[in-house]
Amino acid sequence: MRSLSKDLKKLLGSDQVFTSPEDLLAYANDGTFYLKRQIPDAVVLPHAAEDVAKVLRYADQHEIPLTPRGAGTGLAGGCTPVKGGIVLDMKRMNAIREINKDNMTASVQAGVVLGNFQKAVERQGLFYPPDPQSMSVCTLGGNVATRAGGPRGVKYGATGHYVLGVNFVLPDGEIIQSGGKFVKQSVGYDLPHLMTGSEGTLGVITDIDLRLLPYPEDNLTLVVVCETLDQAAALVSAIIARGAVPAMMEYVIKLAVSVMNSQFSFKKPIPETGEAYLLVYLDGSTAQVKKEAEVIREVAMDLKVPDVIVEEDKNAAAQYWTARKNFFPMVMSIFKRAIIEDVTVPRNKIPAFVSAVQNIALARSVTIGQAGHVGDGNLHPTLMQLEINPQTTLQAKETIDDLIRAGLELGGTISGEHGIGIHKQEYLEWELGPGQVELMRRIKKAFDPKGIMNPGKIWTA
Amino acid sequence: MRSLSKDLKKLLGSDQVFTSPEDLLAYANDGTFYLKRQIPDAVVLPHAAEDVAKVLRYADQHEIPLTPRGAGTGLAGGCTPVKGGIVLDMKRMNAIREINKDNMTASVQAGVVLGNFQKAVERQGLFYPPDPQSMSVCTLGGNVATRAGGPRGVKYGATGHYVLGVNFVLPDGEIIQSGGKFVKQSVGYDLPHLMTGSEGTLGVITDIDLRLLPYPEDNLTLVVVCETLDQAAALVSAIIARGAVPAMMEYVIKLAVSVMNSQFSFKKPIPETGEAYLLVYLDGSTAQVKKEAEVIREVAMDLKVPDVIVEEDKNAAAQYWTARKNFFPMVMSIFKRAIIEDVTVPRNKIPAFVSAVQNIALARSVTIGQAGHVGDGNLHPTLMQLEINPQTTLQAKETIDDLIRAGLELGGTISGEHGIGIHKQEYLEWELGPGQVELMRRIKKAFDPKGIMNPGKIWTA
Repeated sequence: MRSLSKDLKKLLGSDQVFTSPEDLLAYANDGTFYLKRQIPDAVVLPHAAEDVAKVLRYADQHEIPLTPRGAGTGLAGGCTPVKGGIVLDMKRMNAIREINKDNMTASVQAGVVLGNFQKAVERQGLFYPPDPQSMSVCTLGGNVATRAGGPRGVKYGATGHYVLGVNFVLPDGEIIQSGGKFVKQSVGYDLPHLMTGSEGTLGVITDIDLRLLPYPEDNLTLVVVCETLDQAAALVSAIIARGAVPAMMEYVIKLAVSVMNSQFSFKKPIPETGEAYLLVYLDGSTAQVKKEAEVIREVAMDLKVPDVIVEEDKNAAAQYWTARKNFFPMVMSIFKRAIIEDVTVPRNKIPAFVSAVQNIALARSVTIGQAGHVGDGNLHPTLMQLEINPQTTLQAKETIDDLIRAGLELGGTISGEHGIGIHKQEYLEWELGPGQVELMRRIKKAFDPKGIMNPGKIWTA
Repeated sequence: MRSLSKDLKKLLGSDQVFTSPEDLLAYANDGTFYLKRQIPDAVVLPHAAEDVAKVLRYADQHEIPLTPRGAGTGLAGGCTPVKGGIVLDMKRMNAIREINKDNMTASVQAGVVLGNFQKAVERQGLFYPPDPQSMSVCTLGGNVATRAGGPRGVKYGATGHYVLGVNFVLPDGEIIQSGGKFVKQSVGYDLPHLMTGSEGTLGVITDIDLRLLPYPEDNLTLVVVCETLDQAAALVSAIIARGAVPAMMEYVIKLAVSVMNSQFSFKKPIPETGEAYLLVYLDGSTAQVKKEAEVIREVAMDLKVPDVIVEEDKNAAAQYWTARKNFFPMVMSIFKRAIIEDVTVPRNKIPAFVSAVQNIALARSVTIGQAGHVGDGNLHPTLMQLEINPQTTLQAKETIDDLIRAGLELGGTISGEHGIGIHKQEYLEWELGPGQVELMRRIKKAFDPKGIMNPGKIWTA
């Protein structure tokens, strides 16, 4: 591989190429340490689309696998180089080129960190809703590549709902500018959305045009204490059927509330009097928010829900959301292995799915936490294991098989917002069937005839 | 072609196959009578996806061109069979399979008429925003195939924003079920959105899953009388920058107001005191609507806009919107040829585009009406001609060239919501460049290796 390193440095200059073993090791991982991976042969940190084009042309010519990477926070192994080769770390392409208030659009490079972008947008009174919980480090390019979502999906949708344009580089070095700064376009195939969720298998995303919204005038947090899971699920459907669509509606079990109360020193601890909790965040005009809170109170009363706490103190409320955001890292500090499932079911199937998950946990003698974006059916059942050994690994595999089967039987999907990567590839045909997977392979070939782009992902080889 | 007719009747039964000359003639046209077309050799009206699969397998085997068709209201020639062969009229597949209030989703067959669907949805207190102005006849399958929009795009986006799942049949007869009833999915390539806007060139859309919204509680119509086009355009940007996003914001010139006043016998005629008018429709909660009306008043006052009429009388307001909807048919009854352009520019380029259009009209000595969805930069400049002869045809061609060039120079797109069909195919590379068009051709090949699906569309042969 000495020639690879030499060639790349000649092509791009040595400041863009890493090949030392300690550097390479860092690029073998993402958020899924328990999945197979291979140490790459070289890492390239391009400054511009032209650099990306140079690397791609080289890799294509020499048939070297190439894996694009954002911040490496993915939960499906989408950015780990399972076949070695070159990892393309996009972090240096981090310019916010434009935030345009008249157009309500932004143009960014792929390596811009989501949290930085949101702050920049908010300073102008604008709003970019998608909120994967790794927002302090994850990149917009990674968000687009995985079609990332987050708690705000229930009202605002996921990343794909905001993508207007995507510039990307094909393996042959051709730079494609698809879409643009306009909110409507009907000009041939929808390449911006085809790239969204393509997990680095079609080309390298370099620039993105995004749609923005006006920043909501006001917000209000509610904590709803329910007697049972079923009651919480019924409440969710009833709230939405009444036309109140919260920006976030997170489901939390009693155990999680206890842990959060003890770990995050809340100004106002959540009363641990129910089995199931909804953390609700309303946003919009002040009048709108008040009205929706009233609707939730009424619906809760109809369903005999024990307690609805309207948290007027914004600081106290913010603590709940910070705790929610940090819940997964906290779980990871307690357990040796925590596998976040991403099965998503139609909203009216939530009660059935919640009880299926409970049955699976019982049958497999495992601990499965259920917390997540209940408003959009994306509950993230999380398998938590205190030990990693062949027996628990087998148990994990069988449990995930069961969870996925249960989700599909309810008309759900195997991934709501994490993507397939390597974590879900063996389940792909369960959902799509062989004909649809075969069609996707043919689409990939149209972009990447030699198969150099992130090989070994999405489907099994 | 006797064998074609015989074969199809054998395959599907004679009630699904039309081959008489008078039947065939009706299928040679759509909303663009002035474009080239060819009479098809047979028309098939399938009842089910399995019928579609049978026809496709047959057509693929015999390499017979096949063109899917909704209601034939397209404005780009997308559904006319330029190479003859089979037209697949989807109108009999018109079942609304489900409207699910808990999920806020609907599942429909491709031939469902948009207006019927909207009524069915509204009866359940739900809302499906996309509103191409042919809604009383156009089909949801046609809307998806062309990525259709309408006046509500400014707030609610176009058809693509509501598509969750698309079932379609490939030329080899394989039935693909992509997406589903969940609002989030990250499972391989986004086939539902790739099919959206594919204009019948990739496969035949048979079923669609759509996202719904709660029906807005209230609405309010405003008529804003402006001194000049520039003032109207400045007002649009200022309103949106203040965070008020109307559901519709239509731009109308004085001539159009005069014609509407005289043709539609309004309860309250619009004062003809300005050069440029905005018809604004606000929706949401009553409080929200009132607040946005107040914002518009304030912004108008800042910009010294002469008159803002808040029309509290819902019947009087409805008449304006009916007139807006019927404006194009009315124009068509006066002129021999009216070509609706669909160039869309970023919102902040509207004043520049409006003045470019005026200059083009002067330079080419033609009449160009400017009315349309000003809130999303989709102004539909309409070339109106009293005679059709070789000279006016050349004039039309040169004028459209100019309009498209002007839109692209401002960073716009050649089609916001009508699609490419045959009307825009020679301009496709102007916007996308040869590399992107070549990529689209390769994608088409992945779906349709023999090229039977709606050949001769989107790009030039």
